[in-house]
Amino acid sequence: MEEECLVQVEENKQVIFRGFIEGTPKETDLQVMVGKKIELKAPPKGSGAFLVKNLYLSCDPYMRGRMRDFHDSYLPPFLPGQPLQGFGVSKVVDSDNPNFKPGDFISGITGWEEYSLIPTTELSRKIKPDDIPLSYHVGLLGMPGFTAYAGFYEVCSPKKGESVLVSAASGAVGQLVGQLAKLHGCYVVGSCGSSQKVDLLRNKLGFDEAFNYKEEPDLGAALKRYFPQGIDIYFDNVGGDMLDAALVNMKIHGRIAVCGMVSEKNLSDPQGIRNVYNLITKRIRMQGFLQSDYIHLFPRFLEHVISYYKQGKIVYIEDMNEGLESAPSAFVGLFLGENVGKQVIRVAHE
Amino acid sequence: MEEECLVQVEENKQVIFRGFIEGTPKETDLQVMVGKKIELKAPPKGSGAFLVKNLYLSCDPYMRGRMRDFHDSYLPPFLPGQPLQGFGVSKVVDSDNPNFKPGDFISGITGWEEYSLIPTTELSRKIKPDDIPLSYHVGLLGMPGFTAYAGFYEVCSPKKGESVLVSAASGAVGQLVGQLAKLHGCYVVGSCGSSQKVDLLRNKLGFDEAFNYKEEPDLGAALKRYFPQGIDIYFDNVGGDMLDAALVNMKIHGRIAVCGMVSEKNLSDPQGIRNVYNLITKRIRMQGFLQSDYIHLFPRFLEHVISYYKQGKIVYIEDMNEGLESAPSAFVGLFLGENVGKQVIRVAHE
Repeated sequence: MEEECLVQVEENKQVIFRGFIEGTPKETDLQVMVGKKIELKAPPKGSGAFLVKNLYLSCDPYMRGRMRDFHDSYLPPFLPGQPLQGFGVSKVVDSDNPNFKPGDFISGITGWEEYSLIPTTELSRKIKPDDIPLSYHVGLLGMPGFTAYAGFYEVCSPKKGESVLVSAASGAVGQLVGQLAKLHGCYVVGSCGSSQKVDLLRNKLGFDEAFNYKEEPDLGAALKRYFPQGIDIYFDNVGGDMLDAALVNMKIHGRIAVCGMVSEKNLSDPQGIRNVYNLITKRIRMQGFLQSDYIHLFPRFLEHVISYYKQGKIVYIEDMNEGLESAPSAFVGLFLGENVGKQVIRVAHE
Repeated sequence: MEEECLVQVEENKQVIFRGFIEGTPKETDLQVMVGKKIELKAPPKGSGAFLVKNLYLSCDPYMRGRMRDFHDSYLPPFLPGQPLQGFGVSKVVDSDNPNFKPGDFISGITGWEEYSLIPTTELSRKIKPDDIPLSYHVGLLGMPGFTAYAGFYEVCSPKKGESVLVSAASGAVGQLVGQLAKLHGCYVVGSCGSSQKVDLLRNKLGFDEAFNYKEEPDLGAALKRYFPQGIDIYFDNVGGDMLDAALVNMKIHGRIAVCGMVSEKNLSDPQGIRNVYNLITKRIRMQGFLQSDYIHLFPRFLEHVISYYKQGKIVYIEDMNEGLESAPSAFVGLFLGENVGKQVIRVAHE
């Protein structure tokens, strides 16, 4: 009894998922509120669970898929009335698990709230102390970075000298795809949605060329301009019109890695892709993928990318929002292209 | 001079391509007429050319692509005012080429006419005397058969026990795909456009199941019925709605070989494919291909398929039209699904 009296009790601010949506997420689909008070201790012995204080939360486009009442997917829907879930970086507060001790930093699936009880270790990874910013573990060194790595090397079959198009190129995935492609000896062009991003791609991220798709009345003509000989590899983060335009500009035996479809405004009635017949005449391989299928490569990915980063061969751009209160606008901004770089929410300072 | 007097001169009936089209070919796009008289002799020595009498002409959906004024393709457009060209089986009448002697049977690209001058040997292959019907060399043992072979084994990555959907399943390509898949130990369902074809698929070609897509108001539901656990491999000969329905019924890590898009009524404005996002969630590989990229496998293909055929392990169904006069309706019928089996035109008896 005495021990329990020492347990700290905190209010636990949360970002609640209000209910299933259609179309593009709106800020009102989420609600920031103070949830039930939470005791800052792990559950009773034998549970293996641990309690964390969340430091950084990751805003990722795939999360929209969990906002629909659609169960035939690789991830279950969010629960209305409960906090969102997603990748985050957290600090262990208390633990019934010998592998996760108080003070440890971890990266993995957590709740959109100040404190989360993590019931299982399957989706958590302990972060080795390093001089890399902790938040990078939901970006460059997390799921988006690994998506770029697995997608580029395992799906795109890149060869030195090939021409590579990356869409949503300054985003969490795209910025690393482009830099890996440059390191591989490719010619790399990025598409993005603002002149600020064009500037970043050209001057910070080392892309050969970049363009603002919103300023191109004819995307096919834009691609023809940047790829007069055609595109070998299209790393597709957006689907929609850009995919259609890329299909007609691919080279023979081109490859398209289909990674994301952030442009599909409403997944229940996405716009059709009209130029699929190019797959035949150009013998294109178009492949969807999820990073989770390549998870055996994760240690190699970490080693390579950390090494590149420490050598200054790659950089990473984050868009950091401050506080859980900013979570709804940060999340919704993803689908409006408002983020510049990887969108992260800082919940608390380390 | 004396020698020339002995040369036989014949009228040369031709099927003329009248001009570029949009949409589905019509019979009036072609015109059967007697062309210039032709001397039944090879050109002067040194040309390497040879003159053939055409016996069988092949009607293939890809030919529609050559009826458009579109030069950015793997094949040039037909020339208005000139005979169509396509695969055929012919008999050499006279030759300036030591490899092709009078009396030889050849398979290759020829004109839609009674006699053709073949200027180059690159697109012709001498047929070894055998007890297989000569016309099969534009079907089972020709481009369509090889398309099925290369597409199934090289593009679909089939494994024993997998579930395979074939569209246009009684057609020139589909019927062999289905039989190869059965021989490989797969569960095979064919879609086609008439009850007669359903019967053929089930009772002659050995498919496990077959259905008439015209009688299915909801293609997705039909596929769900035949593939309650999902589709591993879709061999797509039609594109359009069936491709969309297949996409939502694929299994994780499914493969789609995109072989033909006969359903795309108008290639200048094909209908859009709406369910491409399934590529991501199901990690589907969708690959276009042309048999010509696998031509190094042609000898192995011939050996395997001839052996299967002689052992009675595969059968082949032809739809044979008689005479060049029937060519326009035979060709147009392809796009209306009127052919039952591989559509061939018999120009002359052997």
